[in-house]
Amino acid sequence: MDASAWLAERTALVDRYLDGRLPPANEPPAALHGAMRHLVFPGGKRLRPAFAFAGCEAAGAPHARALPAAAAVELVHTYSLIHDDLPCMDDDALRRGRPTVHIAYGEANAVLAGDALLALAFEVLADAEGGCGAEALAWCTRALAVAAGSRQLVGGQADDLAFAASGPPALSRVEAVHRRKSAALIAASVTCGARLGGASGDSLAELGVFGEEVGVAFQIADDLLDADRNEACSLVSVIGVEAARARAEALLESALRRACAFGERGAGLRVLAELAVRREK
Amino acid sequence: MDASAWLAERTALVDRYLDGRLPPANEPPAALHGAMRHLVFPGGKRLRPAFAFAGCEAAGAPHARALPAAAAVELVHTYSLIHDDLPCMDDDALRRGRPTVHIAYGEANAVLAGDALLALAFEVLADAEGGCGAEALAWCTRALAVAAGSRQLVGGQADDLAFAASGPPALSRVEAVHRRKSAALIAASVTCGARLGGASGDSLAELGVFGEEVGVAFQIADDLLDADRNEACSLVSVIGVEAARARAEALLESALRRACAFGERGAGLRVLAELAVRREK
Repeated sequence: MDASAWLAERTALVDRYLDGRLPPANEPPAALHGAMRHLVFPGGKRLRPAFAFAGCEAAGAPHARALPAAAAVELVHTYSLIHDDLPCMDDDALRRGRPTVHIAYGEANAVLAGDALLALAFEVLADAEGGCGAEALAWCTRALAVAAGSRQLVGGQADDLAFAASGPPALSRVEAVHRRKSAALIAASVTCGARLGGASGDSLAELGVFGEEVGVAFQIADDLLDADRNEACSLVSVIGVEAARARAEALLESALRRACAFGERGAGLRVLAELAVRREK
Repeated sequence: MDASAWLAERTALVDRYLDGRLPPANEPPAALHGAMRHLVFPGGKRLRPAFAFAGCEAAGAPHARALPAAAAVELVHTYSLIHDDLPCMDDDALRRGRPTVHIAYGEANAVLAGDALLALAFEVLADAEGGCGAEALAWCTRALAVAAGSRQLVGGQADDLAFAASGPPALSRVEAVHRRKSAALIAASVTCGARLGGASGDSLAELGVFGEEVGVAFQIADDLLDADRNEACSLVSVIGVEAARARAEALLESALRRACAFGERGAGLRVLAELAVRREK
């Protein structure tokens, strides 16, 4: 498998779809619609959509059937970055080498653009009704809402903000934040894609664990690349570079074994997991 | 019909349900979960849930069938108030006589609590799958996502913020903001309730227009009560008190005529519409 061609095809597919779903940047209120598009285009690696596509293929269906889930998880991811960058949160002025949304469009538009992208994620899922079956889409709506909620993504961000103030970090506490803040949405990407591809029961649960393992390993890899940033909630600062690297490798190996159970259909999951965890700067 | 007993019963029903759906205030992260509950309990008049219940009754079903929609619209309403109150938006320190969420819990928790309430609205709808039918719930998910999105609720708030800066107000521009910022969610409350009660086609469309008319009239009534605040985007400041009152009455009369087509089943809609528009301070 040519991993970069595989990924490029899927990135192009979700990019076209997102471009059609987001209101044009010049539609009033233009500052709001410009702000919504600012971080979606050009996007990042589109890893979460790729995980949704790969989950769908692992279930034995053509990857394009996961398109609504692929778009929805990217919209949730993008909204969360916009709000995380706000002055009252991480207060970041740059993201992917460009001004963050609140720098480019003002704080009010950044809050509102994030809100609107979150609502749009659910609109996209609900709209897909025709092709996918209402039951499968309700399952995805629920999985995505839970992953985005106060017990996962938003709770993880709240924990992360409170982390520095709340005593010495421990391995289990760091991983709990990673699990909620990063891994939950990656797991939902895999399982929503798989559910739209027809997966259910044990194989769906197994793909959820795969996604969690890859998600935590992905976050450790992030910490390893940014080890010089010395963040409070980083496994590197708790157990050191070598032990953190070993932990990420162990999680990756476990995830790869799970993906192997899906045979050739799990090839996309394996490629993506390695790509996500064994990154170079 | 005893309007206050009718409303009190429905308020109690949605309050109990919301209490069961929101994480306990002491569940970690406690500041986030406390912030989520701060503006939900004690709530306001619970008008939007009441409109959902009344829409369900207009469709000929018992009002309790609309409970997931009633809870979801209240969650969306509450999230929007929390974000509207933020320093970067309306910068309000008080709401319903109590400190706003960002005053009580800090700005980051206020942003995150709003985010989590919005996600929870969609989780509540998706969870209801068993009782209501997946198709009807997908319809509600879509209607709510559109009403909450950049072309309705969020777009209306962006327009409202930009209003003062963008030249002299005109009647049509003020009503466009009211339609997006307030009326869209009230209309979605009525139609989602009605859809869960089995309504479709023309009667659903008619209930949507009813909700829009009541929603705009409701916002004019708000402006009349707060005429001394002299906001930029107020019909009162554009056409004066008497003309604004006449406009609200005309919209209310039109809405009441629509509700009359539903006979006795539309009684709740009529009571609520009058209650919403003919308020005393």
